[in-house]
Amino acid sequence: MNYDLDSAVKKIPNFPKEGILFYDITGILMKPEAFDHVINKMVELYKDKNLTSIACVESRGFIFGAPLAKELGLPIVLVRKAGKLPGDIYKRSYKLEYGEAVIEVQKSDINSGDKVLLVDDLLATGGTLQAATHMFHEAGAQVTDIFAVIGLPFLNFKEKFKGIKVTTLIDYHDEEI
Amino acid sequence: MNYDLDSAVKKIPNFPKEGILFYDITGILMKPEAFDHVINKMVELYKDKNLTSIACVESRGFIFGAPLAKELGLPIVLVRKAGKLPGDIYKRSYKLEYGEAVIEVQKSDINSGDKVLLVDDLLATGGTLQAATHMFHEAGAQVTDIFAVIGLPFLNFKEKFKGIKVTTLIDYHDEEI
Repeated sequence: MNYDLDSAVKKIPNFPKEGILFYDITGILMKPEAFDHVINKMVELYKDKNLTSIACVESRGFIFGAPLAKELGLPIVLVRKAGKLPGDIYKRSYKLEYGEAVIEVQKSDINSGDKVLLVDDLLATGGTLQAATHMFHEAGAQVTDIFAVIGLPFLNFKEKFKGIKVTTLIDYHDEEI
Repeated sequence: MNYDLDSAVKKIPNFPKEGILFYDITGILMKPEAFDHVINKMVELYKDKNLTSIACVESRGFIFGAPLAKELGLPIVLVRKAGKLPGDIYKRSYKLEYGEAVIEVQKSDINSGDKVLLVDDLLATGGTLQAATHMFHEAGAQVTDIFAVIGLPFLNFKEKFKGIKVTTLIDYHDEEI
């Protein structure tokens, strides 16, 4: 099952701001064979891991996490930005380059003892997924695996996830344009 | 293929503000058999329609549109809020109760002659999907179908989509709590 995923990833200079090279997954979404490749790889990776739920990080994580959850017959947990989820919620704030962000999960979506896979499209500094991991741990669940289609290892996300199996399908090493 | 979808929809009073009854699809996401039911219904509805792409509206539309696109082997087009998409974009503003919102699509994701299905989780006033429809039409594509899991027909979305086949799986008629 080889597929040239790199050819489907668009590289956009100076987005969202000057000097940043943006890796755009919409090229994967527009090529059904590329999207199929990604989801099939995910199924292969996670079908025998005894996971109890797939946690999808807003909003591009939804695109990859939902089809996987359907294939595996597992519940979908939404990890959302502040103010989007109704009912009783867990929340966790984390630092951004400038300021702070908050993520939330509904309390009814996490059970003690859960074994959770976190899904996002791209792993850069890993700040959001680290906050999500802490949130699940506080609720008595375990994040056993993290998946992102693209990884930017020069931003050192790996050191944030000791003891968790982190998988990316393609890594880029360009720090700047 | 009968399934009591209503039992999976959580009804949350006073969210996102006082006096509003919020229909929460996370209950569907947490029940694999409910999510399966929705996606299978969508496949049945759209497999023989000769669609060329599935346009998913940020962000809950991604959850239902992406698995459908995988099943049908069709490209996924992201309809996003302002500032999220890189590259050349179409944009369209539309009125909210207070103020204005903007949606965007990458130009490379729409081809003249496309037959597009728009997917979202819930149809209320239909303002966002109407703006998306206009945006696709301006680009020479045709929105032939609109799908949402939940419809709130008392907010009169149907009158905005003359000539387009609009399908919802479950309708609610409660205007207030």
